[in-house]
Amino acid sequence: MPALPSFPIDDLPAMWLRDNCPCPDCRDPRSGQKLFQISSLPAGLRPGTVTGPVIGAVNGPVAGPSSDGEPSVEVVWYPDGHRSVYPLSWLAANRPGGVDRGDRRTEDGKELWTAADLAGRLPRASWPAYLDEPGVRARMLESVLRLGFMLLHDVPGSEGQVLAVAESFGHVRETNYGRLFDVRVEPAANNLAFTSARITPHTDNPYRDPVPTIQLLHCLVNEAAGGESGLVDGFAAASLLRATDPAAFGTLTRTPVPFVFRDAGTELRADRPLIDTDPLGRIREVRFNNRSIGTLRLPAAELDAFYAAYRTFAELLLRPELRLDLRLSPGDCLVFDNTRLLHARTAFAQDGSRHLQGCYADLDGLASRLTVLRRADSLEPLAALFAGAGAAEYLGEPVSMAEHMCQAGARAEAAGAPPHLVAAALLHDVGHFNESADSGDAGESDRSGDTAEGAGGAGATGTVSGHALMAGTDNRHSHTGADLLGRWFGPRVTEPVRLHVAAKRYLCAVDPGYHERLSEASKHTLRVQGGVMTAREAAEFAALPGAADAVAVRRWDEEAKEPGAVTPPFEHFLPLLTGLLRG
Amino acid sequence: MPALPSFPIDDLPAMWLRDNCPCPDCRDPRSGQKLFQISSLPAGLRPGTVTGPVIGAVNGPVAGPSSDGEPSVEVVWYPDGHRSVYPLSWLAANRPGGVDRGDRRTEDGKELWTAADLAGRLPRASWPAYLDEPGVRARMLESVLRLGFMLLHDVPGSEGQVLAVAESFGHVRETNYGRLFDVRVEPAANNLAFTSARITPHTDNPYRDPVPTIQLLHCLVNEAAGGESGLVDGFAAASLLRATDPAAFGTLTRTPVPFVFRDAGTELRADRPLIDTDPLGRIREVRFNNRSIGTLRLPAAELDAFYAAYRTFAELLLRPELRLDLRLSPGDCLVFDNTRLLHARTAFAQDGSRHLQGCYADLDGLASRLTVLRRADSLEPLAALFAGAGAAEYLGEPVSMAEHMCQAGARAEAAGAPPHLVAAALLHDVGHFNESADSGDAGESDRSGDTAEGAGGAGATGTVSGHALMAGTDNRHSHTGADLLGRWFGPRVTEPVRLHVAAKRYLCAVDPGYHERLSEASKHTLRVQGGVMTAREAAEFAALPGAADAVAVRRWDEEAKEPGAVTPPFEHFLPLLTGLLRG
Repeated sequence: MPALPSFPIDDLPAMWLRDNCPCPDCRDPRSGQKLFQISSLPAGLRPGTVTGPVIGAVNGPVAGPSSDGEPSVEVVWYPDGHRSVYPLSWLAANRPGGVDRGDRRTEDGKELWTAADLAGRLPRASWPAYLDEPGVRARMLESVLRLGFMLLHDVPGSEGQVLAVAESFGHVRETNYGRLFDVRVEPAANNLAFTSARITPHTDNPYRDPVPTIQLLHCLVNEAAGGESGLVDGFAAASLLRATDPAAFGTLTRTPVPFVFRDAGTELRADRPLIDTDPLGRIREVRFNNRSIGTLRLPAAELDAFYAAYRTFAELLLRPELRLDLRLSPGDCLVFDNTRLLHARTAFAQDGSRHLQGCYADLDGLASRLTVLRRADSLEPLAALFAGAGAAEYLGEPVSMAEHMCQAGARAEAAGAPPHLVAAALLHDVGHFNESADSGDAGESDRSGDTAEGAGGAGATGTVSGHALMAGTDNRHSHTGADLLGRWFGPRVTEPVRLHVAAKRYLCAVDPGYHERLSEASKHTLRVQGGVMTAREAAEFAALPGAADAVAVRRWDEEAKEPGAVTPPFEHFLPLLTGLLRG
Repeated sequence: MPALPSFPIDDLPAMWLRDNCPCPDCRDPRSGQKLFQISSLPAGLRPGTVTGPVIGAVNGPVAGPSSDGEPSVEVVWYPDGHRSVYPLSWLAANRPGGVDRGDRRTEDGKELWTAADLAGRLPRASWPAYLDEPGVRARMLESVLRLGFMLLHDVPGSEGQVLAVAESFGHVRETNYGRLFDVRVEPAANNLAFTSARITPHTDNPYRDPVPTIQLLHCLVNEAAGGESGLVDGFAAASLLRATDPAAFGTLTRTPVPFVFRDAGTELRADRPLIDTDPLGRIREVRFNNRSIGTLRLPAAELDAFYAAYRTFAELLLRPELRLDLRLSPGDCLVFDNTRLLHARTAFAQDGSRHLQGCYADLDGLASRLTVLRRADSLEPLAALFAGAGAAEYLGEPVSMAEHMCQAGARAEAAGAPPHLVAAALLHDVGHFNESADSGDAGESDRSGDTAEGAGGAGATGTVSGHALMAGTDNRHSHTGADLLGRWFGPRVTEPVRLHVAAKRYLCAVDPGYHERLSEASKHTLRVQGGVMTAREAAEFAALPGAADAVAVRRWDEEAKEPGAVTPPFEHFLPLLTGLLRG
């Protein structure tokens, strides 16, 4: 058991510690949201008694410290007597003053670059691979966050396809230019973008607040001479400015600049600095567009300082070594961070045809999609087990093992069980997948539902044991399963799985009619498994974390052998499972 | 003529002044966008020679200083010899150090309130009035910007109607909750909002960055006991905190707070301060949600300070005198600034029915819509003239005067004329609307198109003169019209209107065939109007601002009498006209 944290609990900021209490009175177990007001906590709050390490038994929330079955410290608070249980692992990971994860939207979460840094390692992929392979998709989305862009090839050349690219990672942000806009020469252009003119490095829509944080450009036709694209890392340029001319950097972070746009149907204005920093001074946003800077109103001396700094930054942004040159070909879609990367294009010949379609989206949705994708990715091995070993028939049972487990999960879901319990029901027999045994035994016909224990069957990538149990040996598949699941899930999922076999012995002890309803085969396995629990054993069982949940799983397990029932596939449960993955 | 500005041009910041040069080489006349790089301007820039006041003759852009025909100062720049013409009115309005318009998104653009301040003056209107009356709509949208909200009654109770409300002023912002979300008790809620629990004052989606800046809540059913709504002005609360506990205010503006949300399909995190200020220290955004504050990682002493400040602010936000209480009835739609107002609801009885639908949108689009609405509003009197006097027949002409003018505008448009010239063609005869004359004269049949001069007709709210001209008097309607239009438009529109009659005399002088093609009637009016110009008169005419445009208008005028031609109504030109309104 881990030692107590090396820092005294009493030294931790009391209000902070209490604000992170994971108990179900403080946090909604389903949503993880806090249920109390910070102002409702008593003044003079401090830890009264501190005990630990203990094995916590409080249901933790989805987000925040989870204390189920983890070595934990228990705090009883003065003056209100509230009890909080903090896992040692959570205290260690979150101790005040430790290394901050940082804010990924600032320069701390980025890899700054100049063009040479990206030689031979452009973040690019083909659209079909991006769609089909979660690993490719994750690598690309990560590139948008880390490098500021990704380049997709082989995107179908149909109009409107750029919206499908945006929806592959987030939500389209509609603007005055529509959900989608065409970048080509327009006869009465309201923006120089819609002419054949050279456009120097800039960010889009600086006159919007909130500014769209992602831009997409999808090339349909590019046959004109010229019209090359360029990207500049605005964070790298701002960082260079800070290093070479800190006064100019300071001026640009402190001066709100009016950006304006006006046409027949629109009049936008936003007042934001060219370089925005977070409260800790980290570069967070670059907004640069020479075309749409309006008239600044400042005392003359400040105007001189601003213009000197603005010119210095502008010169820096035009340095060739900062600009990554690209030529978009039909089917290419460039996706980039519009709060960081500046984009540019050279002039092009009007007689050649050039047509891009663009749209906007936002970084927050992309980051969310990436995180969830990584969760789902990590579940691939489980999905493979269901598709492989699980698809095999249970000999003697009218359903495959995968069907049995999916039915158990579906019954838990239909009963309105919380996600961790649906997961435990779905995964309760997963321990069989990794076991090796002979096949060919006739399964028992067991009303009480000892499906796994009482049946043996061969799987495609694993085999299902059972005869060993029938022969008198507890195959302990419930422990194997719980241990396997510990790779992905916390004790709220694993412990009911671990205890679902023992739950039969428990039910026989506390529910007199239960034993009578068992089939002969199940009564036989009951003896192998240790027989009916004594009163003392039953009390000890009931006190274990997850015992009540194990009993619930047991009931669904028993019901889940209905041949021909409409059964959701494993994939149906993926969102629920990903929501339960260890943070 | 106005005097020179009271400050020497030489004292103005040179780079600032040059950056605001309105000439067509510096700004695209159509889009108003700047055409040069700030870094392309020569170092050591300063005004070489300054001349003025002069009458500028440079076509100004849509946005920025317009120098056409306005008393102006001319600057020839050292060292590059570039010539800039700045209207005195622009110099006076934008002189450095003058009063700043401020950033309307900060507290400077807001009216802060407590509940008592709004007694008897809730910003509310019925949906039909809001839709039908631009004045009501403008007042409501202004309330969202100034007070932080508006309340619409009588919105149809159909599902999805909240999206129509959002689209009445902007673009819907889609989130993980969809384009639209239902606020009612959900069996497996991923958010406490979707339970019957009390929800204390908070802003929505604090874990999003960019956060949705407007929220809408549309009440479909509210029959449950409880479920009252409340609004708190977060800017007022933050301002109160600054006044009473400046250290706490400072702490909250300087501490990025992790806000988190996680469910099966989503994992969002944003690190932003509870009170965000702009670079000048003005309150700009409040983000407050006790449910979704994650675990802060700071040194212990900073955590203590943060929690003390957070509690103080939380207590302040719960003060009853700050909270405006409302009960939403079916058909009510509340629209509020989610960067400023906190919203709340009391708990409600689960057995009663309560169903709201909500969505998100953004403030920038709303502000744009309001500005454009005000422009269009101001054109109402012109629209009324077209519908009134303009609808009357020209006696002896196969088209009404409004048709004639709309045909002229349409021909200019079809010829690809710039907006100011389309407007001049559309409005060239508007001077007739305000004149009074007898009706009943037979009009001339005039190939050369002296429609107005050669025709008289009675209008509904004005009369059309012509016989006075035919009787030997120049009715000078072109000057009347130009002067009338000066209320809305600059010289680029008014001067071609003023000169379009003189253009006939000019064309007779410079285009020998032109006089021959005139009808006898038109030759008659030509004499009344002063006859063919002498060579010297023609040269003087050609040098006037707008002369070339007047000749173009004259040609479209002549073509615009086609009976039965499909003619766009006046309203077709409204967006174009609003884009030309004086800034």
